[in-house]
Amino acid sequence: MVQPRATDDAQPRAAEGMTAVVGGARIRVGIIGATGYVGGELVRILERHPNVRIIGLQARGREREPVGVTHAHLAGTGRTVDAALPEDIDAVFLALPHGAAASIVRDLVARGVTVIDLGPDFRLRDPADYPRWYGFEHPQPELLAQAVYGLPELHRTELAGLARTPVSIVGSPGCYPTATLLALAPLAREGLIEDLVVDAKSGVSGAGREAKPELTYSEINENVRAYGIGGHRHVAEIEQELGWLSGGPAARGVDFLPHLVPMTRGILSACHVRPVRPISQTELDALYRDAYADEPFVTVVAAPPSTKHVLGSNHCRVHVSADERTGRVLAIGVIDNLVKGAAGQAIQAFDLAFDLPETAGLEQLPLAP
Amino acid sequence: MVQPRATDDAQPRAAEGMTAVVGGARIRVGIIGATGYVGGELVRILERHPNVRIIGLQARGREREPVGVTHAHLAGTGRTVDAALPEDIDAVFLALPHGAAASIVRDLVARGVTVIDLGPDFRLRDPADYPRWYGFEHPQPELLAQAVYGLPELHRTELAGLARTPVSIVGSPGCYPTATLLALAPLAREGLIEDLVVDAKSGVSGAGREAKPELTYSEINENVRAYGIGGHRHVAEIEQELGWLSGGPAARGVDFLPHLVPMTRGILSACHVRPVRPISQTELDALYRDAYADEPFVTVVAAPPSTKHVLGSNHCRVHVSADERTGRVLAIGVIDNLVKGAAGQAIQAFDLAFDLPETAGLEQLPLAP
Amino acid sequence: MVQPRATDDAQPRAAEGMTAVVGGARIRVGIIGATGYVGGELVRILERHPNVRIIGLQARGREREPVGVTHAHLAGTGRTVDAALPEDIDAVFLALPHGAAASIVRDLVARGVTVIDLGPDFRLRDPADYPRWYGFEHPQPELLAQAVYGLPELHRTELAGLARTPVSIVGSPGCYPTATLLALAPLAREGLIEDLVVDAKSGVSGAGREAKPELTYSEINENVRAYGIGGHRHVAEIEQELGWLSGGPAARGVDFLPHLVPMTRGILSACHVRPVRPISQTELDALYRDAYADEPFVTVVAAPPSTKHVLGSNHCRVHVSADERTGRVLAIGVIDNLVKGAAGQAIQAFDLAFDLPETAGLEQLPLAP
Amino acid sequence: MVQPRATDDAQPRAAEGMTAVVGGARIRVGIIGATGYVGGELVRILERHPNVRIIGLQARGREREPVGVTHAHLAGTGRTVDAALPEDIDAVFLALPHGAAASIVRDLVARGVTVIDLGPDFRLRDPADYPRWYGFEHPQPELLAQAVYGLPELHRTELAGLARTPVSIVGSPGCYPTATLLALAPLAREGLIEDLVVDAKSGVSGAGREAKPELTYSEINENVRAYGIGGHRHVAEIEQELGWLSGGPAARGVDFLPHLVPMTRGILSACHVRPVRPISQTELDALYRDAYADEPFVTVVAAPPSTKHVLGSNHCRVHVSADERTGRVLAIGVIDNLVKGAAGQAIQAFDLAFDLPETAGLEQLPLAP
Repeated sequence: MVQPRATDDAQPRAAEGMTAVVGGARIRVGIIGATGYVGGELVRILERHPNVRIIGLQARGREREPVGVTHAHLAGTGRTVDAALPEDIDAVFLALPHGAAASIVRDLVARGVTVIDLGPDFRLRDPADYPRWYGFEHPQPELLAQAVYGLPELHRTELAGLARTPVSIVGSPGCYPTATLLALAPLAREGLIEDLVVDAKSGVSGAGREAKPELTYSEINENVRAYGIGGHRHVAEIEQELGWLSGGPAARGVDFLPHLVPMTRGILSACHVRPVRPISQTELDALYRDAYADEPFVTVVAAPPSTKHVLGSNHCRVHVSADERTGRVLAIGVIDNLVKGAAGQAIQAFDLAFDLPETAGLEQLPLAP
Repeated sequence: MVQPRATDDAQPRAAEGMTAVVGGARIRVGIIGATGYVGGELVRILERHPNVRIIGLQARGREREPVGVTHAHLAGTGRTVDAALPEDIDAVFLALPHGAAASIVRDLVARGVTVIDLGPDFRLRDPADYPRWYGFEHPQPELLAQAVYGLPELHRTELAGLARTPVSIVGSPGCYPTATLLALAPLAREGLIEDLVVDAKSGVSGAGREAKPELTYSEINENVRAYGIGGHRHVAEIEQELGWLSGGPAARGVDFLPHLVPMTRGILSACHVRPVRPISQTELDALYRDAYADEPFVTVVAAPPSTKHVLGSNHCRVHVSADERTGRVLAIGVIDNLVKGAAGQAIQAFDLAFDLPETAGLEQLPLAP
Repeated sequence: MVQPRATDDAQPRAAEGMTAVVGGARIRVGIIGATGYVGGELVRILERHPNVRIIGLQARGREREPVGVTHAHLAGTGRTVDAALPEDIDAVFLALPHGAAASIVRDLVARGVTVIDLGPDFRLRDPADYPRWYGFEHPQPELLAQAVYGLPELHRTELAGLARTPVSIVGSPGCYPTATLLALAPLAREGLIEDLVVDAKSGVSGAGREAKPELTYSEINENVRAYGIGGHRHVAEIEQELGWLSGGPAARGVDFLPHLVPMTRGILSACHVRPVRPISQTELDALYRDAYADEPFVTVVAAPPSTKHVLGSNHCRVHVSADERTGRVLAIGVIDNLVKGAAGQAIQAFDLAFDLPETAGLEQLPLAP
Repeated sequence: MVQPRATDDAQPRAAEGMTAVVGGARIRVGIIGATGYVGGELVRILERHPNVRIIGLQARGREREPVGVTHAHLAGTGRTVDAALPEDIDAVFLALPHGAAASIVRDLVARGVTVIDLGPDFRLRDPADYPRWYGFEHPQPELLAQAVYGLPELHRTELAGLARTPVSIVGSPGCYPTATLLALAPLAREGLIEDLVVDAKSGVSGAGREAKPELTYSEINENVRAYGIGGHRHVAEIEQELGWLSGGPAARGVDFLPHLVPMTRGILSACHVRPVRPISQTELDALYRDAYADEPFVTVVAAPPSTKHVLGSNHCRVHVSADERTGRVLAIGVIDNLVKGAAGQAIQAFDLAFDLPETAGLEQLPLAP
C-alpha cells in the first residue's frame, strides 16, 4: 500500500485524555487471531500506540464476544471481536497457527494492505523448508521471496518504508530465533562461528493459551524439562539467518535445544560458540559495542542478564564472554517472548514499514520485580 | 507551593521521540528512597510521565551509583542516585520506612514543596495512633491535621489543586487499606457494615527488597502463611477511613488477617461483611455502580476478579455479592500492590494535586498473562 | 468384611529389599480412579505401606496402560492399569468424581469388601444434602447411614475395626473440611462458636489433573483468586461435622470462601470465630493441647504455620489465638491437600479399619524446602 | 572403623511404632552443619533410616536450639542441636562450606569414625585443584588420596565396606556433577566424547539457605539467569571423573554453564556431546541399557525426563539421543539436587560403606505433582 489512510475519528479517543494523536492521522490496523496470548499483547500495545487506530479484531468462533472474555485484563478497552475486518484498513497483524496465514495474506496483499504475520508462514525464504520443518507445502511460494524477515536489527533497510511498496509482507521472527540471532549476529557477520550449541530456556506462555495436560500449573510448577529434541522448528530460521549473515551455510548444523521452565514469560538463549579462531574479550566487546551502539532495543551488558530485566518490554539484553580455559565464546540473549519475541517486535517492524519512529508505542519500561 | 516551575530542558527529551511535553512545562520531581521496590516503580512510571521531569533521586548509602545497580531493569534510563536534591524542586515522593519521613517533610513543606509520602507517617490523623500502632511518637503532630489521605476515590476534593495550597502533604495509603477500602467504601458510606472480617492475600514484594531468611525463594515458593496475627498496622488506616466514611467508629474492631502467597505482586482483599440489615444483590449492584461509574481506575466486575487482571497497572477491580444462605455480603478488591497500592496511587494523587488529568502517566494497561 | 485375606506372594516383594512384610500377611487392596492426582498419591503411599499389597488399579479408558504414562514419577513401580479388579480383594480405594461411587460401593460392600471413598458420595449423612449441594439424588441413601466420616481425629472409635463389620464404608473427608474441622474441633466440641468465617487458600492440585483453560500455568502463576462464592460444596461437610461436634446446628450458616493460590499443594484454612463468650489465650491453649496431645498427625503450634511445614506428609498443624482487640478467635489449619486432605487420610482411616497402627505407611516426614 | 557399635537404646524408638530395628543394632551417626538445607535433608532421611540412630547434631551458633527453629517441618522429630558430638560415634556427615571440613575430618578419621563429607573438600584427588578452583591450599593433601569420590554408580567397589578400613572418607559429589556424570558416564567409559558443552539448570535451594538479595522470592520468581560464567567450581569434578572414566584428560576443557531457574529443587543437566565417531541411536540405547540395567537409582528413559519425575527421591533419570542432522549426541540427567545431588547420595554411599543394602533409608518414591 502507498499511503496510510487518515482516520477521521481521532476525536473520541482524544477525549479520553489517554493518547495523543501524532500528525492528525492514525494508521488503521486489524488483528486476526486476537484471542491468543500474542493477540492479547498486540491489543495491549496497539491500544496505546500514538499512531494507530485498531479498527478490527478477529478470532475464529468468538465473533461479537467482548475482548474481556478471553483477555480479562483488557476488559477495560471495551473492545469486541468483530465478524469481519473493515475494507479500508492499512495494516493487518496475523497471530495464527502455522499454515493458516498464507492464503489470507495473498488476499490482503492484493488489496494493498500491509501484512505483519507473527506465525512462521513468511519467515523462511526457501519454499522447501516448509515441508521439511513444518510438514506442509507452502501455497504461495512466490510471496516468500517478497516477504521481509522482520528482525529490525538485521533487516532494517528492507523494512523501512515497506508499506509504500506494492507487496508489503513482514514475516515476524519466532521467539527463540530473536533471542538467539541478536546474541549471535555480531559474530555471524564476521564469519566467526565454527560450531554452535544453542541451549534455550522459555517461559510457558510461548506454548500458547490452549489447555493441554502438560501445561497445567501442577505439571509445570517446580519442574524443568527439555523438549523438541532433535529438531525444533525454529532451527530453520536460525540457520537461515546465520547463513545469510555469514555469507554461507554453517559448516555443521546448529544444535538447538529448548527448555520449558516454570515461569510465564521470558526467553534466555545461551549460545555456546566454538570460534573459527581465538578471539579475546576485548575484541568481543568492540564487536558487540559497534553492532548495537545505536539500537534502541538492544543493550550489551557486562553482567549476565536475566529475563526479568526486560519483562513486559520490547528490550533485548545481550551478553558475550570469551572463555580462555575452553577457547569458546558464550553469547546470551534475553527477551520477553511475547513482546520482543512476538507482538512488540511485530510493531517495531510495523513502525519502520510506515515510516514512524521505530520506538512508537514501545516506550514502556520493563516491569520488575 | 503555588506554581509548577517550568523546565527549560524539555528539548532533549522530545528529541528521544519517547514522550510528548504537554503545555511546554514539566513538573520537577524528586524521589527519596529510590532504590527500594516502591522507589523503582516511581522511577519506572515517572520516567514516562508526560508532565514530569525527574530531577533528583536519593537513596542512603548509594550516592552516585547508577540506578541500574539496584534496578537492573531500569539501567536504560541512564539515571544515577544523587547526593542531594536540587533546590528548585516542585514535588518530592518519599518511599521510606516508617518514622523516617516526618522530619524531612517538615523542611520540604517549609520550602513550598509538595510532598507525597508513601510511608505511613502521614496517613493517620490521630497522633495517638502512632505510638499505638507504630511504636513512635509522631514528631510533627501539627502536620498530621494538614495532610490528606491520598486515596483519590475517597478524598479527591481535598487532593485537587493541593499543590497550590501553603501546606501540601499527601499521606499515600498502604497497599492493604487501598484494596480493602475500595472494596468496602460504598457499604461504609451507607453505614451498612455491622461486623467485618478482612482476609487479605499479598505477593511478597510488599515486604520490600531487603534480604530476610523468610523471604528467600525456597521459603516462599509452594507455601502460604498468615502473619501479623492480632493486629497488622494497616488496621489503623482501615478503621480510620471506614469510621470517617460511616460517620462513626465501627461498632467492633476490624478483624484483619494478611497472608503471604507465592507471587511477587498483587493483593486480593476478601471482606466478609455482616450488614446491619438484609441487603439484596440488586441493591448492592446499584450501590457499587453508582459509587464507581466515573472512576477511571476502579471497575466493578460481576465475576470474581484475580490479581493478574490488574498486574502492572493502576487499576483496581471490585466484586460484591450477597450470600442469601448466610446473610453476609462479600466484597473483594484486587490491585497491584506496587502500583495502585503504592507508586501508581501516589502519582494519581500527585496528578490531582497539580491539576493534571488524573490518569496522566498511568495509562498503561495491565500485563497478562 | 471379617478377616484380611493372607497373600501368599510376599516373597517377590521381599526380594526387592524395599519393604518388610509385617506379620506375614498383607491386606489386598485395589484403587479405582488410579490415574488422577489423588489416585497417584494412593499408589505412591500404598506401594510402600508395610501391610498392603496393591493387587489392582483401575482407570476408565486406560486399561493395560503402564502407570508411568500418567504418573511419570511412578514409572519405577512397574505397575499397569488393570482391566478389572481381582475377586479376592480386601479393600478398595475410590478416587472418582462425585456421583460415580455410589453404585460401585453397593456391589463392593455386598462382597464384603471394605470401601474407602475419597469422593463426596459417602460423606454426608442427610440424603437431602446431595441434591442440595451436589445436584443429584443419592442412589443408595440407606448406605449413607452406615458410612463413617473418615476423619480419624473425630471418628476414631467408629473407624477402629470397621473392616470387621458387615458393612464397611468410609466417606473420606474433603480437603477443605479436613483443614477447617481440625482447626475448629476443640472450639466446636465446647459449643464456643457463635459466628464463623472460613477463608481458605488452596494449591491448584485440588482442582484435579484435567486440563482446563483456567488451570494452565500462565493463568495461575502470579495470580490469586477467590472462587465458589456463595456456597462451595465443602460447606455441607463443615456444617454437618460442626453441628455434630457441638450437638446442634450452627446458629448462622458458615461463611466459607476458598481461594486458588499459585502453588501445587497445600491448604491453609483461616477460621475467624466470634465466640459465644470471651475466651482467653490461656483457655484456648489448654483446650487445644488437651484435644490434640495424643494425636500422631495433628500438632498445635504457637507460631502461625505455613503449608510447606507439612508438604508431602500426613501431618496437620493447627494454630489458635485470641484477639483481645476484636474479641475474636483465629484458628488456622494447614495440610497437604493431597495427603492429609485426601490419600494419606484415607490410608489413616484404612489403617484403623484394619486394626493396624494408625501411622502405618504414613511415617514420611514433610519435605522442605 | 571396623564394626558398627551396637546401640542399646532401640527400645524407645520401637515404642514409637514408626521404624523397625533391623538386626538389632543401629549405626550411630552425627551430622555437622545440621541447620542448612542439606543438613535438614540428612535429618529427614536418616530419622527414618532403619539402620541408623542419629546421636548428635551440630550447627555453629545454634547449640541447644530445637531443630524446628530452623527446620520448621522437622519440629516433630523433637531433636535439638547438640553442643558436641558423643565420643562413641560410628559415622559423621559433614554439610559445611568449602574449606571447613578438612581439619575436622582428620580428627574424626584418627578416631576411626567414617566421614561422609558433602562439601567439596574431599572430592578432588589432585591437591593443586583446590587453590585453582576453590582458592585455598588443602591442609590435608595426604588424605585426598585416600578419600573415595562418593558416586556409587562409578565407585561402588571402592565404597563397599569402606567403613571397615582404617581410613574411611567419602567425598560426596556436587549436585551438578552428579546429574552430569550419570548422563555421560556410559559415553565417557567408551572414550566417545570429543567435545562437550554442559548446560545445566538448577532450582535455587542449591544456593543454600543464607538470605542474599539475589535469592529473594521477588528476584527469582519469573526469572531465569546464567551464572558462574567462565568456570563454575563443579567443572573440576566433572573433568576429573570424565578423565578417569575415559582413561585420559578430555582433549578440550568442558564448557559448563549453570542456570538458576525459578523452582526450589531439581537439576537438569543437558550435555551436548560431539562424539569422536558417528554413533547411532541403537548403539546408544544398548550402551546406556547395559550401563544402568542393575542400578537401583538410575533409570534410562526414552522420553525427555523432567526434574519433577524425581522430586524428593534419590532417583536419577537419564535420556540419551543421537541427532542425525547435527551428528551430536544429547545426554540429559535429572535429579533432586538435595537428595541424589546431596543428602540421599551421601546416605547411599554410607549404606555401601557399612555393608547395608544400598537402598536402605532411600526407598521413598518421588513426590508429584
